[in-house]
Amino acid sequence: MKAEILAVGTELLMGQIANTNAQYISARLPDVGIGVYYHSVVGDNPERLKNALVLALSRSDLVIMTGGLGPTKDDLTKETVAGAMNRRLMPDQESLDKLKSFFEKLKRPMTENNIKQAYMPEGSIIIRNNNGTAPGCIIEEQNRIVIMLPGPPSEMKQMFEETVIPYLYERSESRIVSRFLRVFGIGESALEEAIKDLIENQSNPTIAPYVKEGEVTVRITARYPKDNQGEDIIAPVEEEIRKRLGIKVYSSDNRNLDEVVAGLLLQSGTTIAIAESCTGGLISARLTEIPGVSRVFNRGIISYSNQSKVEDLNVRQETLERFGAVSRETAIEMAVGVRDISGSDLGISVTGIAGPDGGSSEKPVGLVYIALANKDDVECKELKLWGTRNRIRNVTSLYAFDMIRRKLIDVKK
Amino acid sequence: MKAEILAVGTELLMGQIANTNAQYISARLPDVGIGVYYHSVVGDNPERLKNALVLALSRSDLVIMTGGLGPTKDDLTKETVAGAMNRRLMPDQESLDKLKSFFEKLKRPMTENNIKQAYMPEGSIIIRNNNGTAPGCIIEEQNRIVIMLPGPPSEMKQMFEETVIPYLYERSESRIVSRFLRVFGIGESALEEAIKDLIENQSNPTIAPYVKEGEVTVRITARYPKDNQGEDIIAPVEEEIRKRLGIKVYSSDNRNLDEVVAGLLLQSGTTIAIAESCTGGLISARLTEIPGVSRVFNRGIISYSNQSKVEDLNVRQETLERFGAVSRETAIEMAVGVRDISGSDLGISVTGIAGPDGGSSEKPVGLVYIALANKDDVECKELKLWGTRNRIRNVTSLYAFDMIRRKLIDVKK
Repeated sequence: MKAEILAVGTELLMGQIANTNAQYISARLPDVGIGVYYHSVVGDNPERLKNALVLALSRSDLVIMTGGLGPTKDDLTKETVAGAMNRRLMPDQESLDKLKSFFEKLKRPMTENNIKQAYMPEGSIIIRNNNGTAPGCIIEEQNRIVIMLPGPPSEMKQMFEETVIPYLYERSESRIVSRFLRVFGIGESALEEAIKDLIENQSNPTIAPYVKEGEVTVRITARYPKDNQGEDIIAPVEEEIRKRLGIKVYSSDNRNLDEVVAGLLLQSGTTIAIAESCTGGLISARLTEIPGVSRVFNRGIISYSNQSKVEDLNVRQETLERFGAVSRETAIEMAVGVRDISGSDLGISVTGIAGPDGGSSEKPVGLVYIALANKDDVECKELKLWGTRNRIRNVTSLYAFDMIRRKLIDVKK
Repeated sequence: MKAEILAVGTELLMGQIANTNAQYISARLPDVGIGVYYHSVVGDNPERLKNALVLALSRSDLVIMTGGLGPTKDDLTKETVAGAMNRRLMPDQESLDKLKSFFEKLKRPMTENNIKQAYMPEGSIIIRNNNGTAPGCIIEEQNRIVIMLPGPPSEMKQMFEETVIPYLYERSESRIVSRFLRVFGIGESALEEAIKDLIENQSNPTIAPYVKEGEVTVRITARYPKDNQGEDIIAPVEEEIRKRLGIKVYSSDNRNLDEVVAGLLLQSGTTIAIAESCTGGLISARLTEIPGVSRVFNRGIISYSNQSKVEDLNVRQETLERFGAVSRETAIEMAVGVRDISGSDLGISVTGIAGPDGGSSEKPVGLVYIALANKDDVECKELKLWGTRNRIRNVTSLYAFDMIRRKLIDVKK
């Protein structure tokens, strides 16, 4: 089954938001054997929306639309699709009742414009929305399926998972499975050279490397009939790639470095404390995105001044004066300090110049020190990064997580 | 001039990344009078790419393509476009030289596959890439313009700003300007009711509200000839909306709440310290995204355990035992504590239950306390939020920034 995703919303064409809905849906559809061949975005304009829908129906079996189901005048997806497919919009009692109780629960008056959300294309399957006011729907016609979902991601996702995925699972004959080998510490073209022969000699699975800020992912994708096992196709190829890239492969299930590190910390019961200067809380914020991490992380210090480095982390005034806040020596004292203060197994620290200002010829923007202390020793890494403030902070946090990861793998051996 | 953005990359169709390039370019084109009417994404497939390009050229004057310019076998944008537009690919000496020196600088060997990046469509204007290896190009033909840019955002952005924007600015006859009124503390439909008559009675500027996690934006868009002033069209409408929404409007230049707060802190020279529990560093990480914020922010404490709350923030053991870590009383002591320790003008604290676990009937997931202390008093806000762990952490950080904002506006009056 060929699918495409058609998003509706001028806010996307104005660049106010990214089309993360298309990303989410695209990542999930292969699980039910459906490949995504196109994404499109059109604005809140009936004519262009209609043309985009007609094009989509001419080249795809399944069209998933997002956006334009809300209460405002701009929201015209249902109206346009119903028109193009010769269906009337009819009031749906259950949707009306849900709308009313939604507003009662919030203790807000239900404004008049909300009611149009309960009018649905005749004969459609209605998708209930438990996180918002706009229901979605599925229209089946002449071997084509059109699915309409609301734009806000928290509503879309819940409806997609609870209703759309089970619906499509029933109807699909094949499965596509992908393995994502995520790799840190090698560039894209060097990586491609290392596995070039594999890429060229494979058609099922296919192998494709791609680059993302500071890291590379290798995707291995297999296609197989409903009742078979895709794993048999992927496993030997994965094994060969792992053999060549070694410890640089940090995950095979598309988990981020921070998720991998949180997993290793939790699994081994290793506690950690974090002292951040130039990353300003980013490393801690990423680590604490993962539920349950409080079992291994009890505190972080964002040390954004010399005074704080001395008072909160026991860095010696002399070290700061002699070597500066951005130095190997300060990084090491920060890591040891935060480890001692917190009573954790590991202490990691970051100090650097994220820019755009604050650099010098001796210590340019992008110079970063990361130190990792355990009870026996401290290691310190010097980085020379390029790019924007955001990139430097982000890549620094990747290096920090990778240092922790390698340490934890060492410890386990 | 009608524009559309055509992104090339199977990784987009697999949902591995979101199409943030389309977002960035779309947000910038109106500044040079160009409206974006479509976004499309196709995979690394020559046939579908060619069809998408033909469609784009049939309905748009300007097609901006991103992705597929790199060194690997999958990268086939230039090859496909050159084929469709009957141009040969020719080696570009300057690009070859730059490639060589790029790899010399990095002290990495230049692998063979890199060379194809220096082959450019005959007669095209070459766009230099200072952040990576793949140059871009501009092809002009029969009142159509095709621009090709690389996929990695840091490369694309720099090339777009330095070469594409000046190029388009020269060629455009009109300008489009948008004002984004960002609003915190009111829902989408209530907001629309408040300004419904304005939305209905306007055609230039147009007015459109849209919702984003926890906040609403009202976009006011005016179109005007090259040498006129768009401001005259927008100002009276903006003034009327501001009159109705009052202090809930927190910015009119599309700055985020955190940027607005950083600006107010820096402007007034008010120093702040941050104590975070459930947000785990997110508030500090966002604040420190802004360059120069070290002038007003010297430290943050991520207090992820009771022990840390006592040791790092001087929360009394008794308070924790009697009221619990997630309580108004603890939040207040955290805010006062972090303010005292850091010697800052303001201290803000957050403690709550971000979920998915850790909730109880008395203290459910989504219960959050935010306290803000200054030298005279402390205020504390109780939130009852819904949604995922990520949403709760994100919306909490918005409320925290909004509390600081309101306090700083108060102080100024």
